Amino acid sequence: MPHFKLTVAYDGTDFVGWQRQASGVSIQGLIEDALAELEEQPVTVNGAGRTDAGVHAHGQVASVSLTRSIDPATLVRAVNVRLPPAVRVVDAQVVPAGFPARFSARSKSYRYRIWNARVSSPFERAYAWHIPEPLDADAMGDAASIFEGAHDFAAFQGAGTITSGTERTIFSSRTARNGPLVAYDVCGDGFLRHMVRNIVGTLVEVGRGKRSPGWVGDVLASRDRGQAGQTAPPEGLFLMGVAYDL
Amino acid sequence: MPHFKLTVAYDGTDFVGWQRQASGVSIQGLIEDALAELEEQPVTVNGAGRTDAGVHAHGQVASVSLTRSIDPATLVRAVNVRLPPAVRVVDAQVVPAGFPARFSARSKSYRYRIWNARVSSPFERAYAWHIPEPLDADAMGDAASIFEGAHDFAAFQGAGTITSGTERTIFSSRTARNGPLVAYDVCGDGFLRHMVRNIVGTLVEVGRGKRSPGWVGDVLASRDRGQAGQTAPPEGLFLMGVAYDL
Repeated sequence: MPHFKLTVAYDGTDFVGWQRQASGVSIQGLIEDALAELEEQPVTVNGAGRTDAGVHAHGQVASVSLTRSIDPATLVRAVNVRLPPAVRVVDAQVVPAGFPARFSARSKSYRYRIWNARVSSPFERAYAWHIPEPLDADAMGDAASIFEGAHDFAAFQGAGTITSGTERTIFSSRTARNGPLVAYDVCGDGFLRHMVRNIVGTLVEVGRGKRSPGWVGDVLASRDRGQAGQTAPPEGLFLMGVAYDL
Repeated sequence: MPHFKLTVAYDGTDFVGWQRQASGVSIQGLIEDALAELEEQPVTVNGAGRTDAGVHAHGQVASVSLTRSIDPATLVRAVNVRLPPAVRVVDAQVVPAGFPARFSARSKSYRYRIWNARVSSPFERAYAWHIPEPLDADAMGDAASIFEGAHDFAAFQGAGTITSGTERTIFSSRTARNGPLVAYDVCGDGFLRHMVRNIVGTLVEVGRGKRSPGWVGDVLASRDRGQAGQTAPPEGLFLMGVAYDL
């Protein structure tokens, strides 16, 4: 019974998110259905992260066990011909039995993209948050660095979620401007629900000049979701990659 | 009667092209309809280039004369609220009477994008030509430089077109690879119908190793459309900008 690690890229615009739902088309569901056709029986695929509706991925990782022997390159081709062009398996690797995509990730990287120009871009409609007012990306960068290290991120957890522990370690948290594009790159050992989008909504308060970078430290220390900024919209968020100790 | 030069960006995926057609939605038609609403009478917009269905623009230029006085920033906002998000007027400038967008352009720049990786990209579906076999971008660059200068481009003119003159001057013609992306950038004083796409289809023959860079010079000299490569698909083509002596 061969076990595979799949690297998956998708444009999340038209899907209900990674995870299979009662209704709507999910990326997990599409891949499970494609593999079930090959296996001629139901297949379960485990993703490393649950991206929400409208969120994209360049490097989502998923694990699957198959009953039939198939080489990785053939598997990639066979799955991709059964997927819509918005979802691609970009790589497959044979991994040891029990490779647990969900629980053993050493780190995950996300990028959040903001299109910061007076006029929106036809090419960034589904891939960035359009903010017409000028943002101070340097101030946002100062605020972003506050998240590096081990912290309790309760203030940035999606409302209504119940998680046993809210401490996470962030390895890097940075912003960069390239013309009208402001990108926020964050890498950490794990993320709470809506955590990146809540961080971005908070950084934007600083970028707009409404708050100082130091205020972000106060929000973090408060552990109170009510203190943080709005949840940034999903279309700007990309799961860039998931790293493992293998 | 104020005259305006409009700079327009659009995602051409869902349109019949720049030019108003008997049926289907055109970018020209959308902008004319938006301006007609402001003017309360029909308006004609002249574009600097006629992009085909599926072709995109970052910097299409169009000219229009209006009867009412309006400042350029207000005009941009008023038109954009009446356009779908796939089409944006990114700039408006007041220009002298009779600014002839179509006939006085000093140069036009196009970019053609090729996604050269085994697996296609969910994010490049509508913005690049997917070629899975490895392309030799250096050989393509050697071939591309052959087009620089004044030449008769009859061999690269779309089949069935009748143009009085087929000589054009190309100021620069280059390829560059950035990871899986191969970009062809060309700037010239004018382009025949399908000329860029026919050039790219020909360069790809070289990139695939089927032909030598020198063969491209033979095709150019032949003035025979039958000698050139296939017409590259529209989705990889972007009108980047139009330059004027004002």
